[in-house]
Amino acid sequence: MKEYRVLTGDRPTGRLHLGHYVGSLQNRVALQNRADVVSRMYMVADVQALTDNYDNPAKVRENVMQVVLDNLAVGIDPTKTAIFIQSMIPEIAELTVLFLNLVTVNRLLENPTVKTEIAEKGWNAGKLARAFDLGEVIDGGERPGVPTGFLCYPVSQAADILFGLANLIPVGADQRPMIEQTNEIASAFNRIYKTDLFPHVDILVGETGRLIGTDGNAKMSKSLSNTIYLSDDADTVAQRVRGMYTCPSKISVSDTVSDLELAGNTVFQYLDIFDTDTELITGMKQQYQNGEIGDSVGKTRLTEALNTLLDPIRSRRAEYAQDMDGVREIVELGTNYARGVASDTMSRVRRAMGIDYF
Amino acid sequence: MKEYRVLTGDRPTGRLHLGHYVGSLQNRVALQNRADVVSRMYMVADVQALTDNYDNPAKVRENVMQVVLDNLAVGIDPTKTAIFIQSMIPEIAELTVLFLNLVTVNRLLENPTVKTEIAEKGWNAGKLARAFDLGEVIDGGERPGVPTGFLCYPVSQAADILFGLANLIPVGADQRPMIEQTNEIASAFNRIYKTDLFPHVDILVGETGRLIGTDGNAKMSKSLSNTIYLSDDADTVAQRVRGMYTCPSKISVSDTVSDLELAGNTVFQYLDIFDTDTELITGMKQQYQNGEIGDSVGKTRLTEALNTLLDPIRSRRAEYAQDMDGVREIVELGTNYARGVASDTMSRVRRAMGIDYF
Repeated sequence: MKEYRVLTGDRPTGRLHLGHYVGSLQNRVALQNRADVVSRMYMVADVQALTDNYDNPAKVRENVMQVVLDNLAVGIDPTKTAIFIQSMIPEIAELTVLFLNLVTVNRLLENPTVKTEIAEKGWNAGKLARAFDLGEVIDGGERPGVPTGFLCYPVSQAADILFGLANLIPVGADQRPMIEQTNEIASAFNRIYKTDLFPHVDILVGETGRLIGTDGNAKMSKSLSNTIYLSDDADTVAQRVRGMYTCPSKISVSDTVSDLELAGNTVFQYLDIFDTDTELITGMKQQYQNGEIGDSVGKTRLTEALNTLLDPIRSRRAEYAQDMDGVREIVELGTNYARGVASDTMSRVRRAMGIDYF
Repeated sequence: MKEYRVLTGDRPTGRLHLGHYVGSLQNRVALQNRADVVSRMYMVADVQALTDNYDNPAKVRENVMQVVLDNLAVGIDPTKTAIFIQSMIPEIAELTVLFLNLVTVNRLLENPTVKTEIAEKGWNAGKLARAFDLGEVIDGGERPGVPTGFLCYPVSQAADILFGLANLIPVGADQRPMIEQTNEIASAFNRIYKTDLFPHVDILVGETGRLIGTDGNAKMSKSLSNTIYLSDDADTVAQRVRGMYTCPSKISVSDTVSDLELAGNTVFQYLDIFDTDTELITGMKQQYQNGEIGDSVGKTRLTEALNTLLDPIRSRRAEYAQDMDGVREIVELGTNYARGVASDTMSRVRRAMGIDYF
């Protein structure tokens, strides 16, 4: 039986939401009970979060413990999964620096995820220029003013994964190019330094792809208020669901709805994911299309489904949050474990490269 | 009185030669006796050497102890200067990763030293593409196939300097853009994280600029055999001097030589640097120009001057080389010292950034 070492992580830039849950958290928890998984690590990716929040480290700091709580709340068991903080493992930085030699600059510029994110951030604008007081010098050329750390974050991510010799990563499908990059680096290292140290890394994509926002927007974002956080209370969830985007042409209950329009109905998209009674939901959709029921029936059902899902998550979160010293201890223990793994891997890296001098 | 902390280093890619001596080593030794210098560190830059020798780590490994011996031989005193190996200080990698966020990609691409070196290495050719088995994918675009680690080495160099809070760097004039880059990063860090942790770094350029090769070629290189190494024996030095480039139009002793042609005479260029008796050399040049003496007079004088310089260097080298365990101990002690400094600086960096969680 092939053995797996699982590593996952979150950027501590905000509390985690339902999108994270279906994209990755659900799988993380499930992997805790798979017999072929021999090691599990969960990383708070604070260094990665700094690559596009370098000028706002307070935001990163504030959210470190929040994402730990979110993970504990969904069922990450600290006796099964080592929880650690990226910036506390110096070996990850050491590996990053060595891996940087194994990737060309334009390979990184062509990484689809990096490319998309650079475009989204509009990074040829003046923001960076101002931050560095260098104006024309930085942004006068044709090349965009991208922080080098951001360009390099796929390399840093390869180091995050490979320091732990992890070979199974439960993440969203948008992370596929990152795992490809990791595998390229791992095999370049193995080939150049004549070793089989680093494994091939498999990706485990969540059943649901990307969860859309409650307003129907593809992207969930705090500023759009279209997000349901795992830590939202029942009233907030009910309120978000009440405001959800449905079918604009259905004004009164008796209005009928086309298949195409139904497909854009956020309430039913969420019900497909979060309500296990598929038969009931299929019937409900039919009634909705035929003009027999209105929005409120689905919304009530969804509110119930979400709160059923979130109730135990909320109570576990509250329990852990009562004892933050205990949570810190969990993270310290996990970080110590990760440091042990990291130190062992770095010794093997040094040996493979022949830079183990003493 | 302003206090200085000195840091210098060499890439361990070969033994050091006269060019290194006049460019930096001479100053390093002199700085050991300056009362305003409160700390001195010497770094073997193995990680930096790997940025363009990633596929030949054996070359780096072999030369680590050679450059240490060269430095001890010229008079670096391990009781005054901490000698350490870059790859053994993880905090340098940690700082590098954090600093990468403070520089844009195109700022690095515009760094004059990086630009020149990339051009010299011809890095849009197929070499890297082959190394990564990615052919067209890497080099199909217009951008050159530069290893990201190489692009980032000015950032890594900033970390080398700033981890020790060094503020005086004795290097060749070609390193000026690197120190500018370091100062930009230091002041960006101080500004963004509201601290005065990192100092402004001054450069101390050697009296002689770049020493030309014995064949008159601007660049010294092992493959051109135009280099005099500090560890070359007296016979090798004599042989190199005999083969030196002089004045092509002077065939017999009685031929006269123009000022312009004399300026290109390598023997006299070296004598200007390595013979302290300037009056005698001025007279000798005159005789040479007037057709009174030939090449051999200057060459004999230069051989003597060089061997006078190199004799004590050779004997110190031989002495240290007899006890390599002792040399390793020197490096271990220096590395421990550097780790202490590094760990203190990283604590202050974490505090300034607010990522000191425990």
